[in-house]
Amino acid sequence: MIRLSVLYPKTDGATFDHDYYRDSHVPLALAKWGLESADIDKGIDGPYEAAVHFTFESMEAMGAALGGEGTAEVQGDVPNYTTIAPVMQISEIV
Amino acid sequence: MIRLSVLYPKTDGATFDHDYYRDSHVPLALAKWGLESADIDKGIDGPYEAAVHFTFESMEAMGAALGGEGTAEVQGDVPNYTTIAPVMQISEIV
Repeated sequence: MIRLSVLYPKTDGATFDHDYYRDSHVPLALAKWGLESADIDKGIDGPYEAAVHFTFESMEAMGAALGGEGTAEVQGDVPNYTTIAPVMQISEIV
Repeated sequence: MIRLSVLYPKTDGATFDHDYYRDSHVPLALAKWGLESADIDKGIDGPYEAAVHFTFESMEAMGAALGGEGTAEVQGDVPNYTTIAPVMQISEIV
C-alpha cells in the first residue's frame, strides 16, 4: 500500500481555508481519483498548517489516478483554499 | 482525535534501519504509550526517509502518554535505528 501525503508548510502571510479544504477540495480529489476516504489534518503544532493522507493499492494505482484527466480540476481548485505551495511525500506503508 | 506524526527528514550521510524501526522501535512506543497501532511509512519520494503516525483520543491523552515515564526509554532507543533528528507534527484529525 502506498501513502501520498500532501503537506502544507506554515507560511508567513499565507491563507488556508480549512473548512473548504475538508468539505470541498478533498472530496473533489477523492471523487476524481476513485478513492473512498482520506485522513485530513488541521495543524496544531509543528511545521505544517494542514495535511491530507491518501492511500493507494500500489504505485501503479496512484500513477493511474494522478495521471487521469481529473487531476487538472483538482489542481485548479487549490487557489480556492490556499496560497501555500504543498510538499508531496510518497511512502510505502510498512 | 489527535495525530502525532514523527517525520524523519532525508539527511545526507544519515542512516535509518527501517526493519528495526517497524519491528522494535514503534512497538516499544506503542507499548509505553498504551496504543494499539500506528501507521508506519517508508519513504519512496519526497523530503522524508520515514515517518510514523500515532493517533490519540485528545491532546490530554497525548500529553499523559508522552509525559509518562516510558517516553525516556522510547527516546533512548532512537540511536539504535537512526542518526536523523525527527520533526514532530501535532494535528487535529478533521
